[in-house]
Amino acid sequence: MSRFWSDLVSNLTPYIPGEQPKEQNFIKLNTNENPFSPSPKALKAIKRATGDDLKLYSDPNATELKQAIADYYSTTKYSVTKAQVFVGNGSDEVLAHTFNGLLKHSDPLLFPDISYSFYPTYCKLYNIQPKLIPLTDKFEINIEDYFRPNGGIIFPNPNAPTGKYLPLSDIKTLLEHNTKSVVVIDEAYIDFGGKTAISLVQDYENLLVIQTFSKSRSLAGLRIGFAIGNSNLITGLEKIKNSFNSYPMDLLAIKAGVASLNDQYYFDKTCKTIIKARETLIQEMKNLGFETLPSTANFIFTKHKVLNAQDISAQLREHFIIVRYFNKPRINQYLRITIGAEPEMQQLIKALKLILYP
Amino acid sequence: MSRFWSDLVSNLTPYIPGEQPKEQNFIKLNTNENPFSPSPKALKAIKRATGDDLKLYSDPNATELKQAIADYYSTTKYSVTKAQVFVGNGSDEVLAHTFNGLLKHSDPLLFPDISYSFYPTYCKLYNIQPKLIPLTDKFEINIEDYFRPNGGIIFPNPNAPTGKYLPLSDIKTLLEHNTKSVVVIDEAYIDFGGKTAISLVQDYENLLVIQTFSKSRSLAGLRIGFAIGNSNLITGLEKIKNSFNSYPMDLLAIKAGVASLNDQYYFDKTCKTIIKARETLIQEMKNLGFETLPSTANFIFTKHKVLNAQDISAQLREHFIIVRYFNKPRINQYLRITIGAEPEMQQLIKALKLILYP
Repeated sequence: MSRFWSDLVSNLTPYIPGEQPKEQNFIKLNTNENPFSPSPKALKAIKRATGDDLKLYSDPNATELKQAIADYYSTTKYSVTKAQVFVGNGSDEVLAHTFNGLLKHSDPLLFPDISYSFYPTYCKLYNIQPKLIPLTDKFEINIEDYFRPNGGIIFPNPNAPTGKYLPLSDIKTLLEHNTKSVVVIDEAYIDFGGKTAISLVQDYENLLVIQTFSKSRSLAGLRIGFAIGNSNLITGLEKIKNSFNSYPMDLLAIKAGVASLNDQYYFDKTCKTIIKARETLIQEMKNLGFETLPSTANFIFTKHKVLNAQDISAQLREHFIIVRYFNKPRINQYLRITIGAEPEMQQLIKALKLILYP
Repeated sequence: MSRFWSDLVSNLTPYIPGEQPKEQNFIKLNTNENPFSPSPKALKAIKRATGDDLKLYSDPNATELKQAIADYYSTTKYSVTKAQVFVGNGSDEVLAHTFNGLLKHSDPLLFPDISYSFYPTYCKLYNIQPKLIPLTDKFEINIEDYFRPNGGIIFPNPNAPTGKYLPLSDIKTLLEHNTKSVVVIDEAYIDFGGKTAISLVQDYENLLVIQTFSKSRSLAGLRIGFAIGNSNLITGLEKIKNSFNSYPMDLLAIKAGVASLNDQYYFDKTCKTIIKARETLIQEMKNLGFETLPSTANFIFTKHKVLNAQDISAQLREHFIIVRYFNKPRINQYLRITIGAEPEMQQLIKALKLILYP
């Protein structure tokens, strides 16, 4: 507390990200990073751009990256244009501007009670009134619960930390019933088995889809996020962005992002491997007495039939494995475990066996 | 305008950055970039970090970079600690959080009428009441004009776009007279001949000094800015930052920033060359009938005795030279011209001669 702080600062409840341990000898299964390296093409693009040009400001509009994203999501049925694309310094920055620019209205903002824990933080930052809608007993989003007056709706799909996926048909129904405010689908994990709602953007002017390069594209360390929606929504976001920071995307992020989108083979291969490893892990966890929610993400949400989640988390750490534990109502018996590389998953199972059968 | 925008969006007046032309054949003297490449050590550090680690989130606290900045500004007389350092995605992001977290109070925020044109934009973004204090007829900051109730004070030193420098003794006097609100010295251009106010941070708990790697360190394309101040001020900024984006600094920016700070020889050499080129340019411009304000920055602010500034700007463009012209009261007869490399300055003089003596 300081008398020099604005009133806002004192009221904030900052988001606490998963730990990034300084030591190298941990198996990190706590922040849903990808076990595979970024696309070799992306790494090459960074090295190629590392030179004299870094003395110049990057393109404030990141046009090259927006165009590459637009092209990537254009299909034979419809074109995504670059005017429908917004980019930011990680999807967290994109989310922040979205809360401020599109989700702040007199009616409350609706999102699930169990969801990305940054959402309530944004609400405090921008003085938005949240209305938390409980997930069902099966940790599912019941879209009918969102048929009520609101200033906006946001949820991750698949949801975090549950990993549960809502089919596009449900999102379409939700959009049919909710035409007066913006609906944001936060698709950080969509590439691990879900279907993106980008295909609906052409038909619903109030739909905004947000994605990131941090998970399926293994570029968490480079900070690239984006949104696709009607160009009116994007114009609103650009106004906020251009009142905040003209150049949020650095040159290397722009170049690496473009190159990553141009390496479909690598992307498909790594995503498929993770999906396969996830299904294998769920089965092996089942054999150890864990109940795991069906997941369409690069993580699982799991609880043991007998053992306490926080204890398991602490004991895994002694085996140099970090998983994510949330000490929150309804989910304090669950662990969120990132799908790692095969040897990491084997180490995890080995450690769990030692913990369960000491 | 869209019914989906928050009320805020409609009221914004976004900042318009200097043009980044797509074509390569322009001599860019419009955005105060450095004509020299980044330190070879910084480029090497980027290439070294371009690999597997990019799949992981960067350190949310950017500890390595903060420590390097703290060490760099520590002297035999005092230590800067990393708790006194805040870093952001370019100094524009640092400024944005500063406006929101430290400069928003019931009394108005004071800054010069001629100054960095992003300040009024931040005021609109965060609903801060600005009170513009006119520069003197000589385009100088008269600190006594700031001896009045305020919710904060901010100005660049040297000022932009004038290039005029305010001595530390004046800043000290200002701080003595203003102890109840935060005083921000925006030192984007300090390394081109000025003395940083960081030495005063130990004595004034309400002083925040903001700097950037975009000018003197030739890293505009990588987006690194920082602030140094009392740890209470920094804690306030961290609360905002952690409510906005956990990881604003990517891995490559952290590594390049540290390496740049460790290349004092290159830094000194390039800064000295620019200072020398500036003084040469001012002299040559004088011979052509230009009156130039004394500058302590990597740009000059100049007007011709006869010719119209906007005309000169337009004609320079026909010679493939871009300078910055502000169509604003009091300064609409001035041009802001970045100090470029020697051949660029020769081209500029050659073009001006052709324009003046066709």
